[in-house]
This record gives sequence, C-alpha cells and structure tokens, in this order.
Amino acid sequence: MESESILITGAEILDVNGVRRASVLIEDDIIREISADLSPGDADIVIDGHEKLMIPGLVNTHTHLSMTLFRGVADDLPLDRWLNDHIWPMEARLSGEYCYAGALLGCAEMIKSGTTAFNDMYFFMDDVARAVDEAGLRCVLSHGMIDLGDDEKRRAELKKSRRIIRKCHGMADGRVMVALGPHSPYTCSEELLKETASMAAEHGIKIHIHLSETEDEVKNVLESHGKTPVEFLDDTGVLGPGTVAAHCVWLSDDEMEILADRDVKVSHNPSSNMKLASGVSPVTKLIERGVNVSLGTDGAASNNNLDMIEEMKTASLLQKVSLQDPTALPARRVLEMGTINGAESLGIDAGVIEEGKKADIVLLNVRRPHLVPWRNPASHLVYSASGSDVETVICNGEILLDGGELERINENYVMEVAEEAAEELTSRG
Amino acid sequence: MESESILITGAEILDVNGVRRASVLIEDDIIREISADLSPGDADIVIDGHEKLMIPGLVNTHTHLSMTLFRGVADDLPLDRWLNDHIWPMEARLSGEYCYAGALLGCAEMIKSGTTAFNDMYFFMDDVARAVDEAGLRCVLSHGMIDLGDDEKRRAELKKSRRIIRKCHGMADGRVMVALGPHSPYTCSEELLKETASMAAEHGIKIHIHLSETEDEVKNVLESHGKTPVEFLDDTGVLGPGTVAAHCVWLSDDEMEILADRDVKVSHNPSSNMKLASGVSPVTKLIERGVNVSLGTDGAASNNNLDMIEEMKTASLLQKVSLQDPTALPARRVLEMGTINGAESLGIDAGVIEEGKKADIVLLNVRRPHLVPWRNPASHLVYSASGSDVETVICNGEILLDGGELERINENYVMEVAEEAAEELTSRG
Ligand SMILES: [Zn+2]
Ligand SMILES: [Zn+2]
Repeated sequence: MESESILITGAEILDVNGVRRASVLIEDDIIREISADLSPGDADIVIDGHEKLMIPGLVNTHTHLSMTLFRGVADDLPLDRWLNDHIWPMEARLSGEYCYAGALLGCAEMIKSGTTAFNDMYFFMDDVARAVDEAGLRCVLSHGMIDLGDDEKRRAELKKSRRIIRKCHGMADGRVMVALGPHSPYTCSEELLKETASMAAEHGIKIHIHLSETEDEVKNVLESHGKTPVEFLDDTGVLGPGTVAAHCVWLSDDEMEILADRDVKVSHNPSSNMKLASGVSPVTKLIERGVNVSLGTDGAASNNNLDMIEEMKTASLLQKVSLQDPTALPARRVLEMGTINGAESLGIDAGVIEEGKKADIVLLNVRRPHLVPWRNPASHLVYSASGSDVETVICNGEILLDGGELERINENYVMEVAEEAAEELTSRG
Repeated sequence: MESESILITGAEILDVNGVRRASVLIEDDIIREISADLSPGDADIVIDGHEKLMIPGLVNTHTHLSMTLFRGVADDLPLDRWLNDHIWPMEARLSGEYCYAGALLGCAEMIKSGTTAFNDMYFFMDDVARAVDEAGLRCVLSHGMIDLGDDEKRRAELKKSRRIIRKCHGMADGRVMVALGPHSPYTCSEELLKETASMAAEHGIKIHIHLSETEDEVKNVLESHGKTPVEFLDDTGVLGPGTVAAHCVWLSDDEMEILADRDVKVSHNPSSNMKLASGVSPVTKLIERGVNVSLGTDGAASNNNLDMIEEMKTASLLQKVSLQDPTALPARRVLEMGTINGAESLGIDAGVIEEGKKADIVLLNVRRPHLVPWRNPASHLVYSASGSDVETVICNGEILLDGGELERINENYVMEVAEEAAEELTSRG
C-alpha cells in the first residue's frame, strides 16, 4: 500500500473515551499521532477538521449487502409471503455479477453514511469481495450455508466456504476477511454446525449466524431437537468468542447466560426486527450480563437502508419504549455498540480514535440546522443526525469519501449497474 | 403577494392518489395545472423535475418549535428529572427573542427536511409568528395555556391567547393561523377548557391539546375528576372536528369511540413517545375507527430532530413491532398521515398534488445510492429516505428551498443566533 499521510486538524473527537479536540495524523493504515500540536507541514494531505465531528468508522455487524438490489421490492408483508413470493424467487435468479452490483451499491451507501466495516453473509461472496476491494471498505464475508439436513448439500456448502476462505481471506491488504456462515439453527444440521466449529478453529476464523430472530424459529428448533436454539448451537461447539450471532430476539434467561459464558458477540438489528415484526431483543439484559452487543442494519430488503446512525437512534428508542424506561440504552452506550463493540466483534483493531489503531475514521459536518445548538455530541450523533451528515470517510488510512463525494468508486456508474441488475432480477420470472 | 409562476417539469408525483409522472404549473399560491403537455414557456421559473420525486409538503401536527434551543441539552433521563431539572428551569428563562431564535432555527430545519406546515404550541407566539412569516412556512400557532386551577392564571392565559389571535391570526398572507392551546387535561381546569371551547367557536379557530401522553397523567385525571381524560375533555366541549389532540397513547376503547364520534384529529408522535418511554399509541385501532391520525415530531428536546420522513418510518416500524404484524401501517398509510391527514387536521387545503390546491410541494433527489433501485416510491420515501434527500421546497407558491439552499432566510445567521440564544439559556442559572 502506498498511502500518503493525512492530517486532520482541530476536529472535535467523539468515541467511547468521551469528547476532546485534537489533530490526528494518519500514516499508512494507522492513527500515528493525536495531539493539539501537529502542524500542517507534517502531512501530504491536510483536512480541515474545524466544525466537524470526528468519530470512529461505524461497524455494521450484520447485513446482506447484495440485497440492496431488493430494496423496496416487497414491503409490509407477512414474513412467509415476503420470503416465499418475493425474496426467495429473486434470490434463485442471483448470479455473481448481480451480487457484485448489489454489493457495490451497498458499499457506496455505507461509505456515504459513515460505515467503514461490516459483517456480511450471502452468496457469491468472491464477487462481494471484489466489490469491497474496489470500494475500499473493510469486511468479514461469509457464504451463507444451508443444508436442511441434506448430506450432499452440506458437503457442497462447506466446499463453497472453503473455496471462499482460500480465495478471499486476507485479500485487499487484509481489509477482506472471511468467516463461516451457517445460516441458522433451523436451516443447518447438527453435522454442518459441528464441521463449522472445527473448520473455524482450524483456520482461526470467525462464525456468523442468525439466531432466534422469530418466535416460530425457536418453536421449530425445540420441536426438532428438544433443545432451545442456544442450547442446540452450544452443543455443536459453534458458540464462542469468535461467533457473531445476529438478532437474538427470543432468548430465555438461561440462553442469555450461555451466550455470556461463551463470550458470543450479539448483533442487534432493531429496524429489521421492527419492520418484520420479529420482536424486541433483550439488549439491555444482555449488556447487563456483559455480552458484547453491536449493531447491524440487516439487509436493505428489511430495513430499508444501511444507515448505522439511524440504527443507533432506533436501537435506543426501541429499548426505552419497550422497557418503559427513558434511561435505557443512552446515547453513549449505543455509540459504543456502533463503534468499538462492532470492531471487537469482527476482530478489527479500530472502533476508537487512539494512536496505533487502524485509521478508520469518519467526519460529520455539524454546521447544520438539525445539529444546532452544538451541546452534546453523543446525543446529536445518535438522536439528531443521519447518515447524510457524513462528509469524509477514511478506511485503512485511505480517503473513501471527501466532502461527500466518493473517491474510489463512481457513484453514477454504481447506481446504473445496480438499477440494471435489479431490473433484470425483478422483471424475469 | 407577487409570486412568479413556477413550472416543475416531468417529476414523478407521489401522494395519496398514487404515483404518476407529469409537469406541474404553479400560479400565485395555487397548483394551477397538472399535465404532461406543459411547455417551459408557460412559466417565469422552470424547475427540472426529472429524477426527482414530488410529494406534497409534509405536515407536522405537533411540535414546540422554539424547543430546538434545548436540543441535546438533556437526554436519557426519567421524565420528572428531564422536566424539573432541565426543561422547566430553561423555559422559565425564555424570552420573545429566544423563542424567535429557536423558531427560526426550527423553520430552517423543517424546510430543509420537507415540512411546509406545522402545528405549534408554546410561549411568545407572536415572536414565533414573526419567524414563520420570515421563513415562509405555513402554521397554526397556539399559546400553551396552563392554569392548574388558579383563577388569575386562567384569566391571564386566556388574555394572552386572545391577544395572539388578534395580532397574528391570518397574518403573512394567511400562512399564519392561530389556535387555542390548553396544554392538557392535567394542567388545565374545567373552567379553562370550557372557555377554550366557547372562544374557539366564537373565533372559528382550532384547538391544540396534549392528551394522555403518559400512564401517570391518566391516573391523575381519574383521581382529580373521576373521569378518564377523554371523558373529562368531552364534558367541557373541547372535543370536536377542529381539535388536534397530540400523543393519545393511553386510551381505552371507550375513549377511542368518543374521539371517533367527535371527529377529533389525533397527532401521533412516535419518536417522542419512544424516547420518553411514554408508550405506544393505538394508532391502528384509531384508524380502524375512522379517526384522522396525522404525525408530529414533538419538540426537538424529546426527539431530537424535526425530520418528518424519519417520523413516518418510525411510526410504521413501531406499529409493526408492537402489534407483531409486519403488515401494520404500510408505507402508503403513513404517507397519508404525513401529508393529507395533517393538512386536513390543520384546515389547510393542501396535502395532495391536485389542481386548485395550495402549492405546498417538495422535491426529493432520488438519484442517491440509498434510494436505488428506484422501484416503489412510497416505500423508498418512508423506509429508505431521510429529510436530507429533500432538495426543493415550495410553500404557498413560493420557493423556500432551492437545490438544498434556503432562499428566504440565511442559514448561517439562523444557526448563529440560535447557538447564542441556547448558550445564554443554558449557561445562566
Ligand atoms: Zn440477516
Ligand atoms: Zn408536546
């Protein structure tokens, strides 16, 4: 990598450490120095940080990027009709090129709204990796494995995963990592889950799984296996500190204990859970038990955007109203979920503005009417801002968004290609 | 008024009538013609509507505009501490100039996020009217009356209301209307409410009141009056088709029947209800009973922005998750709440793009990654967009926002004045 050094002068910095004002020097992919005394002569590129808020790049810990192609195609439907009549038929027509187009669109959207890293599970993941490589983001990708108890399918899915690990893990200067993605306890056999656990250990990679999103799923697993979903997963060995479990809406106290004991990382997806009427995850209880809870947007088909700033607000408001407690999940806590917790979940040495950390940094323009008066940066970020306030995005020491303009990918081209792909996917059949 | 005629060419139009593409000619304050055949020569000003979505100006039916000054000052607190330790002490220091500054900031924010009309209850309303006049918006303003059973206070509050009616009702070419604003059933005496009812009838003006926002309020009214809040209000005569009742979270079935019978307009405020943990309004049930339910952001201190597009999404998602029904409050329905229902509630002949209606019109830029693919305009507006996608705003036939730039008020000046006012309000005491 031949990055130039970047100096951001005099920005107000907000992260889990609180608020302070300083200049930040980036060299290569690292935050080299944070100080009030850095002079513009020290860097190749100087960004004026005054009247900007600097936050760590947001980390989206559960999404299906290529599903941006299905945005707005089907809404306000019961889950079974949504899946059977719309999502699955379209997914059956997917190809690598379509997934590439959708992923590139998703990258553009994420960059423009301040996300620098994400955790993705879907199909044609080498094409997704190609899009991420071009866009400049950081990610953990997993091929979504579903065997429904079929031996042949199981072998095929594991083979696909192995191929993606070999082909993509560590590519793009290490920005692209690969994980194993057994889809869920109700779509994966015990054997598939056991092999996932041992393959993850063998390669030293993470696991990404859906867990207890709907009440029906829990019933299904109980009927099929005589165990709760968490117990079932735990017995296969897939629950550990390297596992990100998405949703976790329907959990018993015992299941929460197991997740805490195994140090499983939970990805909370409030907008998707609300839109699909899945339920309200017991996030506050999980946090009380010491579980790392981060945030995900889920796919654009069930959200319908990838705006992590909006997701932070939704997470806080949903906990407050459902617990009837206005102090639940305060701004500072959701900021933690959206940054450092996400980074830790994905094994990324970022999520905080500190010397030596990866240079994944976002600047927001705070001179906007809806952010005045400028009193409490955490509150304004979570409750008043939106992804559109993001102005500059740096990932791995490289500028991806400058003054609201994408630097590495061509926005118009990305939108055109995605529009065409969506047109083809929805018009056929 | 010396408006020039405005032609918007070839925009995609979305309102309660559905989606169609046409050009729209505005003359004076009216939508004069909608047709595919209008030629640019017909108008003084031509706006290219291609790749734009045209919607009716959004109508915010419950807010306290000057409270933008308190944005982010106090969050994540129990309601009593929020009010007693923060909001009320600051409100005690308010002046006309502060309220003007806050209102102007609120107007800037509303215009930039696509709101053209709003219903406001607060103090120093002639100063708020002055701000609205300058900003170019349309509104219904009411002095918030609280007597707590004190005769002298009651007379003083009614006198203030009378003064505002005389001074402001019908000003700014009729853009500013005045209503009566008895604060709530738990802060207003029976006498005050009765006098409100007769004064509203006398002047032919609307009533704006808070109703059953929290469970505690309902208990208080039951204890004080031996009636539910709705029964209590109904007996005073304040419930009628010209009354907008904000919140309506805690309602019995009988109370819903009364609201429907009296044709009371309900303003739903989901973000505020979630953030303050007030509860979930039975919006779907109210709509089933034929009640006109519109949307409000409430004040910026409890939201913390005035973004009606965000409010539409939140309204839909909150109903879906709380009813465990993904089909609840679909996009088309919340669009109705945010536009025509609001306009009807405030007695404004707008909220829909039709010939002869007031020219309150908003254009959104839809060539943005988070709005691709462009499939379902109602879904994209409600679930994917945010106020920042608004590009052009026309109110009463006049352009208030052009290419994202405020035309009538100076954004930097507005922000500076508001910042100073907030500084003074929060630093003293
Ligand atoms: Zn998912
Ligand atoms: Zn209110």
